[in-house]
Amino acid sequence: MARVRPLTRAAIIAVGSELLTPTKLDTNSLFITDRLNELGIDVATKAIVGDDRDELVHVASALLTRVDLLVLCGGLGPTDDDVTRDAVAIALGRSLAEDEAITARLRARFAARGFTMPMPENNRRQAMVPAGARVIENTRGSAPGLWIDYDDRVVLLLPGPPRELKPMLTALAEGSLRERTSGVPIVRRVVRIAGRIESQVDEVLGPLYKEWSARNPSVAATILAQPGSIELHLSTRVASAAEAKASLDNAVSDTVSAIGPDAYSTDGRLLEEIVGGLLVERGLRIGVAESCTGGLISSRLTDVPGSSRYVDASIVTYSNQSKSDLLDVASSLIDAHGAVSEPVAAAMADGIRARAPADIGVGVTGIAGPSGGTPEKPVGTVAIAVTTPAARRVRTFRFHGERAQVKFQAAQSALDMVRRLLLDMR
Amino acid sequence: MARVRPLTRAAIIAVGSELLTPTKLDTNSLFITDRLNELGIDVATKAIVGDDRDELVHVASALLTRVDLLVLCGGLGPTDDDVTRDAVAIALGRSLAEDEAITARLRARFAARGFTMPMPENNRRQAMVPAGARVIENTRGSAPGLWIDYDDRVVLLLPGPPRELKPMLTALAEGSLRERTSGVPIVRRVVRIAGRIESQVDEVLGPLYKEWSARNPSVAATILAQPGSIELHLSTRVASAAEAKASLDNAVSDTVSAIGPDAYSTDGRLLEEIVGGLLVERGLRIGVAESCTGGLISSRLTDVPGSSRYVDASIVTYSNQSKSDLLDVASSLIDAHGAVSEPVAAAMADGIRARAPADIGVGVTGIAGPSGGTPEKPVGTVAIAVTTPAARRVRTFRFHGERAQVKFQAAQSALDMVRRLLLDMR
Repeated sequence: MARVRPLTRAAIIAVGSELLTPTKLDTNSLFITDRLNELGIDVATKAIVGDDRDELVHVASALLTRVDLLVLCGGLGPTDDDVTRDAVAIALGRSLAEDEAITARLRARFAARGFTMPMPENNRRQAMVPAGARVIENTRGSAPGLWIDYDDRVVLLLPGPPRELKPMLTALAEGSLRERTSGVPIVRRVVRIAGRIESQVDEVLGPLYKEWSARNPSVAATILAQPGSIELHLSTRVASAAEAKASLDNAVSDTVSAIGPDAYSTDGRLLEEIVGGLLVERGLRIGVAESCTGGLISSRLTDVPGSSRYVDASIVTYSNQSKSDLLDVASSLIDAHGAVSEPVAAAMADGIRARAPADIGVGVTGIAGPSGGTPEKPVGTVAIAVTTPAARRVRTFRFHGERAQVKFQAAQSALDMVRRLLLDMR
Repeated sequence: MARVRPLTRAAIIAVGSELLTPTKLDTNSLFITDRLNELGIDVATKAIVGDDRDELVHVASALLTRVDLLVLCGGLGPTDDDVTRDAVAIALGRSLAEDEAITARLRARFAARGFTMPMPENNRRQAMVPAGARVIENTRGSAPGLWIDYDDRVVLLLPGPPRELKPMLTALAEGSLRERTSGVPIVRRVVRIAGRIESQVDEVLGPLYKEWSARNPSVAATILAQPGSIELHLSTRVASAAEAKASLDNAVSDTVSAIGPDAYSTDGRLLEEIVGGLLVERGLRIGVAESCTGGLISSRLTDVPGSSRYVDASIVTYSNQSKSDLLDVASSLIDAHGAVSEPVAAAMADGIRARAPADIGVGVTGIAGPSGGTPEKPVGTVAIAVTTPAARRVRTFRFHGERAQVKFQAAQSALDMVRRLLLDMR
C-alpha cells in the first residue's frame, strides 16, 4: 500500500428515520467511538439522518470535507427505505452496480435458512455497490459492509444491527483500519461500584480526580450513575500501551484503596460475571428463589456463558401458596410476618438450597409496584436473604423508581450480597 | 407580525465534547423532538458537535441550508469552552455585542446568591449576543436562550442542562414557536409483528406503503427489525386529531388484514403485555419451565404490573437432574431424546403445569451457546412446548446470534406460541 496520511479525525452518521423520533437514540456510535478512540482516531462530529437520500447526500458531503474517516451505520437493508448505498455513491460521485458475488452469497444464505420460497428480489438491493468499494463480509447478517477509498480519505458503510456491526468493526479495527492509523490511542477503563450513592463516591474520589489529571500522562475521570449502578470511567492517551496501562492501573488502585470492596469490578465485567467467577473459584452452586424479581436474577446469572457450572435450578414463586408448595416456606411464617419480610426471604433461600439443591441460596421478596404498597411496606420494599449451611445474611431495602428499576436494583443488591458473602468465604 | 412561512423542518445540534465520548449520549434531542413534532415540525437531522468553534460553524452552516428551524443546545456557559454564541454569529454573518441588560441580570443573579466577591468577568461572555437576537430569559440558570430570525428561518440557542432547557422550550412551544407553526402535529403508532422475517413483512406491506403515502392525509411507514422482533412505525400529520386517528386506524387495519395474527400489537403494548391481557381475559394462569432462557420468560411476564393475577410460579432447570427432580421429567425421556428435544420440552411444560399449578405450561430447552452445540443440535437450537389439559404444541427453532440474542428470540417465540394458543381458545 502506498504511504498515506494516517486517519486521525472521524465523523459518524447513524442512518434511520426511527432515530429521529422522540423515543429512539443512536447507540451504535458509542461502540464505534470506542473502537476509533482505541486507534487514536478522534470523533469530531456525529450526525443522525433519516431514511432520506437527499438529506443523507447533503450531510455526508458536508462532513466529508472536514474529516479523513466517515463512518455510516445503518440503511443497508433490502428495502426502498435503505438509502445509504445510493446516497454515498452520489456524495462521492461514483456509479452503483450489482456485485454478483454478493447476490450469490445472499441467495445461498437465504436457502441455508431452510426457506422453501426463493429469496425476495428486493434483497438484491443489498448487492448494489459504489464503484471502487471493497466488500466486507457480514458473518451475522445479509447486509455486507463497504470500504471506500476516496483520495486519502476512507468512507466506511456498516450495517445497523449491533450484532452485525460489532464483529465487523472489531475485525476492521484489528486489520485494515489499524493499518491506516498511527495515532496515540485513547485507553479507557471502567470501575463498577455497588452499595454507595453517586454523591458519596464523588466526595471520596473528588480529590483523586484532580491528582490524576495533573499526572503525566494524565488520567481523566467521569462518573456515570443510575439507580443500582455506579461506574467510574477512566481514560488516558499515551503512545505506549504499557504506560497507558500503568497510569490506569494506578488510578484503579487509588480508587480501590478509597472505596474498598464496594468497587466490585475493575476489568469491565458485570456483577453477574463477578459472582459467577467467585462461584467457580470456590466450587459452589447457587440457587435463587425469586418473588418480586420474577426470574431476573436467574436470567442474569445464566446470561454468563458457562453458568451451568454453578446454576442447577431456580424457582420463581409469585404467590404465597407457591412459596409453601415449591420452597417449603411455612404458611405460619407468612401469616406471622407477611410475604415481604426477612424471615420469609430467609426461608425462601433455605428452601431453594434444599430443592435445587445448591450450596448458596438466595431469597428475594418485595413489592415491585406500582400497586401493592402499604404505609409500613411501601412500593420498593424488598427483603433479601443469602444463606449457606453456615451463614445467613438478611437485609431489607427500600428502592425508589418504577417497577423495572425496583426489579433491577433488587437483583443488583441480591447479587452484591452473594458477592460479599463469597469474598468472606475465602 | 408579518405573514411568514410556517416552520416545518428542523435540525438539532447538541454541543459538548463529552457527548462525543464512548459512554455519553445526547438525550436532550429526544425532548426537543417531542416538542417540535407536537407542533408539526419534523426533525430532518440531528448532529452532535464538540466544544470546537470551527467545527460548529461548519456543521451549523451546512444544516441551516436545508431546514427552517435550527435548534442548538448547550455550549452557552461562561467558559472558553462555550462556543455556541460565537459559532452561530459567524455562521449567520452577524456581529456579536454585549447585551447590557443581560450583564446587569447576571450581576444581580450573582449578588443574589450571596457571593461577596464580584461576578468573574468571564461570565460576561454569557451576555454576548449576535445582532438581532431576542433574549429568552432562563428562570433556572445563568445562560439566557437566544431566538434569532434569519430571513424567514429561525435559529434557537438553548441551554444544555435539561432542567433549564425543558421549561424554556416548553414556554416557547406554547408561545413564539407555536405562532410560527402550521399547527399540524405528527402523530405516531407502532405495530409489532412476530413469526416473520423483515423481508417477508416488507414484501407483503410494500404495496401498502405506497398506497398509504398517496392517501390524504398520507401515512408514512418504517420497519424496525431486530432478531425476534419486527416493528412497523406509522406516522401521519394532520390538523385534526380525529382525522389523524382515523388515518392511523386505517393503516393499522390494512396491516392486520395483510399480516393476520402475526401482527400481535397495534397499540404499543409489548408481547408480554399482550399475553398477560389474554390470560386475564380468559381467567387462566401460566407457569414457565425454563432451561436455556434461564428465567427470562418469567422475568418478562412479571415485568407487567398486575402479573400476579396470572403467574403463580416458574421453575428454571439448568441440569438434567433438576428437570427430573423439580419438573418430573422422566430421566428415560432425557436419555432417549436428549435434554434439548421436543418430548423433553413437552414434559417440562406438563411438569410446571402440575407443580405451579397452572392452566398453561411452557417448556423451553435449548442451546444458548457459545458452547454446547453439536452437528445435529447446533448452538441456537431450542425446543419449545406449550401445553394445556386439552392442547399440546411443540416446535423446534434454530436461532442465530449470540447467547443473549438466542435467549431473547427463544423467549419471544415461546410467548408468541402462548399468544396463538390463547387466541385459538377464544
